[in-house]
Formats: sequence, structure tokens, C-alpha cells
Amino acid sequence: MFRHHSQPLVTAPAETAVLALLLAEGPLSRVELARRTGLSSTAVTKAARPLIDDGYLYELPPERTAPGAGRPVNPLAVAPDREYFIGLKISADRLFGAVCDLRAGIRATAVRPLGECTPEAVARLVAELVDELLDTEPAFRDRTRHLGAAVNGDVDRESGRLRHSGLLGWRDVPLAELLSASTGLSVTVENDVRALTVAEHWFGEGIGTGYFALVTIGAGIGSALVVNGRLLRGAYGVAGEVGHLCVDPNGPLCWCGARGCVEAIASTDAILASVRHDTGDGNLAFDEVVRMAREGHPAAGGAFARAGNAIGVGIAALVNLVGPERVVVSGEGVDAYDLLGRHIQEAYAAHAFGAASRCPLSLRPLPWEEWARGGAAVAIQALFPQYTATPTAGSG
Amino acid sequence: MFRHHSQPLVTAPAETAVLALLLAEGPLSRVELARRTGLSSTAVTKAARPLIDDGYLYELPPERTAPGAGRPVNPLAVAPDREYFIGLKISADRLFGAVCDLRAGIRATAVRPLGECTPEAVARLVAELVDELLDTEPAFRDRTRHLGAAVNGDVDRESGRLRHSGLLGWRDVPLAELLSASTGLSVTVENDVRALTVAEHWFGEGIGTGYFALVTIGAGIGSALVVNGRLLRGAYGVAGEVGHLCVDPNGPLCWCGARGCVEAIASTDAILASVRHDTGDGNLAFDEVVRMAREGHPAAGGAFARAGNAIGVGIAALVNLVGPERVVVSGEGVDAYDLLGRHIQEAYAAHAFGAASRCPLSLRPLPWEEWARGGAAVAIQALFPQYTATPTAGSG
Repeated sequence: MFRHHSQPLVTAPAETAVLALLLAEGPLSRVELARRTGLSSTAVTKAARPLIDDGYLYELPPERTAPGAGRPVNPLAVAPDREYFIGLKISADRLFGAVCDLRAGIRATAVRPLGECTPEAVARLVAELVDELLDTEPAFRDRTRHLGAAVNGDVDRESGRLRHSGLLGWRDVPLAELLSASTGLSVTVENDVRALTVAEHWFGEGIGTGYFALVTIGAGIGSALVVNGRLLRGAYGVAGEVGHLCVDPNGPLCWCGARGCVEAIASTDAILASVRHDTGDGNLAFDEVVRMAREGHPAAGGAFARAGNAIGVGIAALVNLVGPERVVVSGEGVDAYDLLGRHIQEAYAAHAFGAASRCPLSLRPLPWEEWARGGAAVAIQALFPQYTATPTAGSG
Repeated sequence: MFRHHSQPLVTAPAETAVLALLLAEGPLSRVELARRTGLSSTAVTKAARPLIDDGYLYELPPERTAPGAGRPVNPLAVAPDREYFIGLKISADRLFGAVCDLRAGIRATAVRPLGECTPEAVARLVAELVDELLDTEPAFRDRTRHLGAAVNGDVDRESGRLRHSGLLGWRDVPLAELLSASTGLSVTVENDVRALTVAEHWFGEGIGTGYFALVTIGAGIGSALVVNGRLLRGAYGVAGEVGHLCVDPNGPLCWCGARGCVEAIASTDAILASVRHDTGDGNLAFDEVVRMAREGHPAAGGAFARAGNAIGVGIAALVNLVGPERVVVSGEGVDAYDLLGRHIQEAYAAHAFGAASRCPLSLRPLPWEEWARGGAAVAIQALFPQYTATPTAGSG
């Protein structure tokens, strides 16, 4: 059986701390690394040595901070091209792939339409897409060992199984194993919103924050939360379900069975259904509803106002309960942010409690390749032992 | 100036892990300790040695697990009487104190009415209460060095300052410093709900859980959350504010300025106001409202139903976002749980998303001395370096 799991690159805590800091923040001197990690200078030098020898780190030319400021220092930096990672986003109708370097910089992208949507067919298509990506540069093929797949649904990252995906209609699929078998790479699978959050936390707006949240809006309303630097997973695998907070006891029924969920008011489908109902025109498309709202149509404008309000109340709940340092709002729904934004911000401001209102919301439009980059970020994390799955009996 | 901070008892990670496990779970063999902490047997033995020498741990008589099962093992246990801790709860009208042993067992309690409620007057009263408590047994005075104070409001545990307490009407009070000066003990101050949660997490229903939540109902609706074994504090000091989630856009206005907060529907005052409004009787007392509801009065019953529903929706939001392993419901409001419980459970079940519904709610009626015990639990935590405040310029 295929061993789909990654071997961590670093195992000693000191190496882990040094590499993680350089990955997230760019070049730093050994003195700065020692200060930031709490390690001694000797320990930093010792930890960096094998990573320099392996080509993951290198020394920048010496720089003198000020004339006569003592002996020159050589900052350490990550060599981004030392290793490449395939990031993958499996959406309902397309497969997005990216080659990323060690610092999650996108180096090549590719996309394929999904035809037959069985796990086996997708695994074959992934192999083709990976081949296409690795063929774009010889170095990619030589230095790519890991693939990270971002996928809608309930994922057990440790075992690499997709427990359930409503969007794909899959249930209990050993996805890491399938993709590892078809591509020959070690594979990590993660829920797509969590993968995006990892990318934003390590390489984007969340750098350096201990508490961080990303909320996605669009076809679904989701979020993922980072607490003390780690993704919140929930004791039962459920966490960050901002889309299923009840914000209105008289609100519409949600597909989940509950009434008044944020998602039942604010998803693309919910907005569309509301305007179709109010106008009596059951054939309206979402694009038309957006256009109508921009042109000042009251029913369409009202639906976006209610949606923005529900999202803002949901984000306020998240901020009041968990206390992130900042919240990034993303997802395909931000295309209509001109219609939603003011309502989101107003509801958030009205319901954020006390000092929690200091937590800024920032908007991050993410094209689809950024989701694939999320997959790559998860694969990069797998270089670190605390993020690497422990092989299980069924998959080792 | 007084140095109110504790010195941690253990500093090495191995000692910390061994002592924490024995405190929470009771006697364990060295083999079991090694397995549970991930340390080698040698490391466990080495870590336990100074704690045995200092009298914090002792060896139980050897026990043989089964005939012929190898050499006998001496389980290690915490000596609960090695050190005592004063726990304190400062409520609006009374001061509750307790002497607790190392495993947070209550050994003596005392209570005083609060007269003048200035910080200085309370500090003097605390000194009298502590004297009374320490006089109950000579060993208490000999072996008590730490006091933990649980207090309503926004507390900065690290600096020992109470930033703001609505209940006490205090703002920016250096409470740890004041209490340390008046009692001569090292002092840790914590928000009362968080202190109660620490006690429940280390020594109660939460033992062994990585994700845990405690919700208090009554005059206010609050909660505190434990994630990966640590209290959630929030980047801006705000977290666990389940009382200020908006659950009804048409709900009553809350004192915080927002509309439809759980607390505006479900606090004791909110229930009372609702029944006074519906009956037109502005002189009703809460006890009467409880009695009326128990006797089937529709307005009173309806107010409790709405309150229970709001609390259940709030707990579901907490569970959907954070994913605790279990939720404990407590606070003086549980006295009316016969009127609230069914509505809380029904709303929670209706709004918990997917597998999150497996998270059990359990009820824990807590008399006031348990809140004081929460303070003692915080003082016990201060034996560990990760929970000990770093002295600041103003307080060291």
C-alpha cells in the first residue's frame, strides 16, 4: 500500500522554530532569530547548520547596520527554490493546480474541467494536471515531493480521508491515498477554507498573529480560526461553522435543518431565492440579481442588505467568542462586496462587544488559484512534525 | 513596592508535565506517566525526584497489577496537604473565601458582607477574611503562600489589574498589588467565570479535555473556553462573550447597546422585565416570577421559554464555532433550570451543526464557595511557569 504521508523535514524543536520564523517573515539575523525564538545564539547556529547544508537556508551577504556597529552580520534566508509543492483545489466543476515554492509563491498554475466526478476519475485527472504542472520547468519535477489538496467538506487531515463533501457528493473517501497512488507524491488533504486560512496565516494577512480568522462568503458561508498559532479543529471535527449560527429565529429554513442560519440568509442561493420570491420571477440568475441591486432595485438591494447584515452578525459572534486579532473576509462572494460590505461592517460594528470591536475586518478577493495555493501551504506545513500526520494502520 | 507575583514551583517542562498530570488525574505509575507525557521513564524519574524531595509528591505503597506481572510499581501521588491556597470570590455584596489544598479540595470556608465597596476597603476586608481562614488550622498559616481572586469584569491576569468591573463599579484597579499588600500573600487575579472554568477544567468535569467550555447563567450570561488546554483570552482581552451574541434582530435592547443579545433576553433582569411588562405589574420580584412560572402562569412561563431558547442558541453558536468536547452550564441561574432546561436543550439540539451535536451539555449547580475555589485553582495554576505572570515595571 502507498505511504502517502510526508516525512517532516525538521524534527528538533529548535530547527522547527528557526525554519518556521524564516518562512513566515523572511530574512533575519541569527541575533534576531535568537531573540524571537527564545533560543541561545549557539542553539540558532546549531539549528541552522543542517538546513544550510541541505540548501533550505542560505546566508545573505553581510550587512553592517551602522558604521562602527560591530562585526557584520549575515542574515539567514529561506531558499524558496529548494523545494516545490503542488497545491490543488478540487471544486465542483474544475480542478485548479499550482506549483508553489517554499514560501508559497505561485510559480505555475493549471486548470482542468472536471468531467466524471468519482474519486477515481478525479485522481486520474489530478495525475494529468500534476504532470502538466511539473513539465513546465525541469526543476519542478526534480524538487517536488509533496502535494496538498484543498477540498470542500469534512476532512480528517490526519488519516487523509474525506469524511463527507456535500459539494462533491462524496462520503468516506481515502483521498490522500488515492492521490498519492495516482501522482507518486506524498499527499496532505485539508478542508478548503482551512487550507486557505493556513496560507493567509503563514504567508498573508495573518503573519505573526496568534489569533486569526478567515471568513469565506459565496455559495457557502464558512470560516476557519487560528488560536495560539494553531488551526481550531473542534473536539468533534466541527469548528468555525459561522454559516450555521442562528441569527434570526424567524429566518428561512437552512439545508442543515435549522432555522435562521447565516448561510440560509446570505449564501448566493439564499440571496437568489429571496429575490426570485419577492419579484415572482423564478428564472432570475444570480448575475441578474447583482445587476438589479447595483441599479437600485429594492427587492435585490434588500436581499443583499439582509445577507450583509447576517454575515456581520455572524462575524461579530465569532469575534465575541474567540477574539481574533484580525478577520479576513474572502471567497467568491466578495465580488459583490460593493453590495454587501457596508451592511457587513455596520452589523459587525453594532454587535462586536467592547474591546472586541478593535478587531479589524479586511477584505481579500481571492482568485481560484489562491485556493490551490492554500493546498500548497498545507503541504509546506507538513514539513513540520507537529503538522505531519501520524501514519495509521489503514493508510501506512 | 510589593512583589505580588508567584514564583513558579516547577520550571523544567518535564516537571511541569508530571505535576500537572498528577494534579488533574490522581496517582499514576511512572510507566503510565511516561506514556501519557511522552517522556522516557528515566526523565519521569528525574523530574519527580525534586518534587518528592520537596514533599509535593510521594510514593504510594507498591502495588502488583496481577500475579506474576513483573516487579511491583510504586504509583506517584500528589501530597494535597503540602501547600494550601486561598481562593476568593468578590461578589457585589459579599466576600467568599476558601482554603483549598493542592488538588483544589475545599478545606475551610468563610464569608463576609461587603460594606463600603472601594478597592481599599475590600482589600482590608480580604485581609481579615484571610486571617480568619488561616486561623482555622495551624498548618494553613504555615503552608499558604498564594491567593487567587475571582472577580467580575475585565481582568488582566498578567499585570494583576482589574480593567473594569460593571458589577463592582471599579475601573483600572491594581487589585493584585492591593491584595498582596494587605495579606502578604502572592496574588493572582482572574475574571470569575474564567476562574470557575479553570477549576472545572483542572479538577472537575473538564479533566482531560483539550476543548472545554463553561457557560454561566443568572444575572449575566457568560462563558469561558479552553482550547488545546489553555484558556481562550482573545487578542483584545475579549473571548467567550456568549451573552452578547445576537440571536434575534427584533429582540430587546441590551445594556451593551446592541439589540437581541442573549443576555438581553435571558438574564435574570431580562426575564423579570419581560414578565413585569406582560403582566403590567412593575413590582414583581424574581422569586415571584419563578413561582408563577412553576404554577403555570403563561407570561412567566413564556419568559423562561424565550430565555432558555436564547441560551440554547448561544451555546449552539459556541459549539459550532469552537467545538468543545463538553459544555458545563452553571451559575446561580441553574436554580431555575427546571424552567429553562428543556428550552436550552431543545434550542441547542436544533442549532448544533452536524457532529457538533455530539457535544454534551451538563448541568453543574455551583454554590458560591465553588467560585472561591475557582480563585484557588487559579492560584494553583500559578505554580506552573506558563501560567505565572511576568512582573511588569509597575508591579514588580
